[in-house]
Amino acid sequence: MSAKLTIALDAMGGDNAPGIVLKGAAIACRRFPEVHFLVFGDEQRMGRFLKRLRRLRNRATVHHTDEVVTNEMRPSAALRHGRRSSMWHAIEAVRDGRAAGVVSAGNTGAMMAMAKLLLRTLPGIDRPAIAGYFPTQRGETVMLDLGANLDCSPENLVQFAVMGEVFARSVLGIQNPTVGLLNVGSEDSKGHDEVRRAAQILRETTLPLRFHGFVEGDDITRGTTDVIVADGFTGNVALKTAEGTARLYSEFLGRAFKSSLSATIGYMLARRALHKLRARLDPRRYNGAMFVGLNGIVVKSHGGTDTIGFANAIGVAVDLAVNGFNDVITKELEAVGAARPTLRESLAAS
Amino acid sequence: MSAKLTIALDAMGGDNAPGIVLKGAAIACRRFPEVHFLVFGDEQRMGRFLKRLRRLRNRATVHHTDEVVTNEMRPSAALRHGRRSSMWHAIEAVRDGRAAGVVSAGNTGAMMAMAKLLLRTLPGIDRPAIAGYFPTQRGETVMLDLGANLDCSPENLVQFAVMGEVFARSVLGIQNPTVGLLNVGSEDSKGHDEVRRAAQILRETTLPLRFHGFVEGDDITRGTTDVIVADGFTGNVALKTAEGTARLYSEFLGRAFKSSLSATIGYMLARRALHKLRARLDPRRYNGAMFVGLNGIVVKSHGGTDTIGFANAIGVAVDLAVNGFNDVITKELEAVGAARPTLRESLAAS
Repeated sequence: MSAKLTIALDAMGGDNAPGIVLKGAAIACRRFPEVHFLVFGDEQRMGRFLKRLRRLRNRATVHHTDEVVTNEMRPSAALRHGRRSSMWHAIEAVRDGRAAGVVSAGNTGAMMAMAKLLLRTLPGIDRPAIAGYFPTQRGETVMLDLGANLDCSPENLVQFAVMGEVFARSVLGIQNPTVGLLNVGSEDSKGHDEVRRAAQILRETTLPLRFHGFVEGDDITRGTTDVIVADGFTGNVALKTAEGTARLYSEFLGRAFKSSLSATIGYMLARRALHKLRARLDPRRYNGAMFVGLNGIVVKSHGGTDTIGFANAIGVAVDLAVNGFNDVITKELEAVGAARPTLRESLAAS
Repeated sequence: MSAKLTIALDAMGGDNAPGIVLKGAAIACRRFPEVHFLVFGDEQRMGRFLKRLRRLRNRATVHHTDEVVTNEMRPSAALRHGRRSSMWHAIEAVRDGRAAGVVSAGNTGAMMAMAKLLLRTLPGIDRPAIAGYFPTQRGETVMLDLGANLDCSPENLVQFAVMGEVFARSVLGIQNPTVGLLNVGSEDSKGHDEVRRAAQILRETTLPLRFHGFVEGDDITRGTTDVIVADGFTGNVALKTAEGTARLYSEFLGRAFKSSLSATIGYMLARRALHKLRARLDPRRYNGAMFVGLNGIVVKSHGGTDTIGFANAIGVAVDLAVNGFNDVITKELEAVGAARPTLRESLAAS
C-alpha cells in the first residue's frame, strides 16, 4: 500500500460520537500511515477532540455538516430529511470518487438506504447485504446477511453466496472457500421454500462455487463452512445470540473465579492465557460489518463500540479497498458471464 | 407426588437407542420413586440392557414393537408406515390414558406429526410448538418455537406466547412472567409483517399477559424476559447458535489452560469452581424439549444425549405431569374466555 488511500468518516454516528470516531481515527492513523480521512461532522462538537488529536488533524480534511441522522430515524425519513447530514455527505464522497470507502457507527437502516440510493448495487446483484466475520473452531467464518434484508428470495440468497465467497477469498485469504446455507437441518427436505430453492440453484449452478449444502446454527462456530448464507432476519438473530452467549459464558466464568480463594489464585496464575483468550474473542476485534454488493466500500461499526473497535472498523474498510474487493466481485461475475450464462441468466434459467 | 405416575418411553429413538434410553430410565427410577414406565421397543435388542437393570425391570412394563422410525424418515412417511413403531405405540399410550406423558429421543418431525394426529391440539391452540428452557444471566428463560413450525402466522406466535407464559409460571415457578417477541430490533417499526402484527395483537389483547415488546438475540442469554417467542426457523437457529457458541468458548478455554504450565496449575486450583460452572451450563441439564399445545405431555430428548441427559428429559415429563401443565393452559384459556372474549375471538377481533 504505497498510494494514498482516502476514507470518509461519518463523525456524528454512534452512541458516543463524535468522540469515539475521532479517537478511533487517530489510532487508525498510527496503524495505516498512508490513509487520509475526510471527516464529516459538526465542527463545534468535534473541535475539542481535534484540538488534542494532532496526528489526526494533520491527516484529515474536515467538512462541517449541521445535521445528524439519529438512531430512531426511519430509513425513509432519513432519505427525505437527511441529505445535509454527516452520513449522507460521507457516503456521497465515495460516490464522487473522493474517498475509497466510508465508515459510520450510525443508524444501520438509514445508512443502507442512503448507500443504495447513492452508490447503487453492483451489476448482477439485486440487493446488498451486511456481512461480518467471526472466530470459529477452525479459523474464521464469513456470515451474511446480518440484517439488511429481512425477507429474501432464493435469488437473493444465491447472490449473497457469491459475494460471501469472494469476501472469504479476497479478504480472509481462504483458497476455495466452502459455502453453507443456514437451515434447521442438513437433509435436503428441511427448511422453508426459499432456502430449499436457493440450495437447488446452488447445487445446479455453473458458478465456480463450492456449495457444501445446509448448515445449522452450531455449524457457525464449528467452522463447518467458510461462508454462511442466511436471510437478514435469521442472520441478525444468530449473530446477536452468539454475542450474548459469549457474554454469558464470560460473566459466569468471572463469577467462578471469584467464588473461592483457590479459584482466585488459579485465575491469577492463568491470567496471561485467559487474557489472550479474551483478546481472541473480543467483539471489538470483529467490529466492522461490510455492506456488500454496492459500487463502493461501506463499513458499519457497532453503534456502542469504543475507540479500539472503531479503529478496527476503519481497518476493515482499508482491507477491502486495498484488496479491491468490489473489483474482484465484478470480475468474478463477468468471468462467469463470459464463459457461461451470467448469474442473472443462470438464475433465470434454473 | 404420592400417586403412581406412568411415563411411556420410546426405547428405540435416538443415536444410541435402546441403551441410553433404558439406562437413563434406570437413573430416573432412583430420582422418582413413584414413576412407572411403559417401555416400547424391540425385546431382543433391549434384553441385554434390561437383564442388568433390575431396578428398572421391576418398575417397567415392556411392550414389544418390531418397527423403528429412523432419523432419515420424513414425517409423512412415518405417519403412513410407522404405525407399528415404538414411537407410535408410546404416544398412543398417552392418548389412551395409560401414560401421563411420553419421552422419545427419536426423529423430531415424525414425533410431532404422530403427536398431532394422535393427541390433537388443545382447544384454542392451532399448532403445537417445541419449547425449551436455558440458563441466563438472571435465571432461566423459556423459548419457543424451537423448530416445529418454520412459517408462523401472527396468531400462531400469540398462542406460543400464552403457552410459554403458562410454562414459565407453572413449571419454572416464575410469578408474572414477562414475554418478549424475538426480532432484529426493539423499535415498533422493526421486523417483518408477522412479528409486527403479533406484537400489535399482544399489545392490544385482553389476555392477562405481561408483554415486554420486541427482544433481540442477545436478550435471550441476558434474561431480559422470562419467555421468548419466535417462529420455529429462527428459534431453532438461535438455540443451536447458542449451543455452538458455548462449545466454542469452552474449547478455547480448555486450550488456554493447556497453553502454559502456570495456566495449567491455575486450572487445577480453580478446578472445583470451573466444574460447577460446567455443570451449570451442561446442555444435558437442559435436555428435554416440550411439545406444548397438545392434549398430552410429550417430551423430546436430544438424539445424541447420554444416559444423564435422557434421565433429565424424563424429569421434564414428570415435572409437567406433576404440575398439571396442560390443565393450567386449558384453564387459563377458559378463564380468559369466561371473563372476556376467548383467545380465538380476541385474535379474530383484533
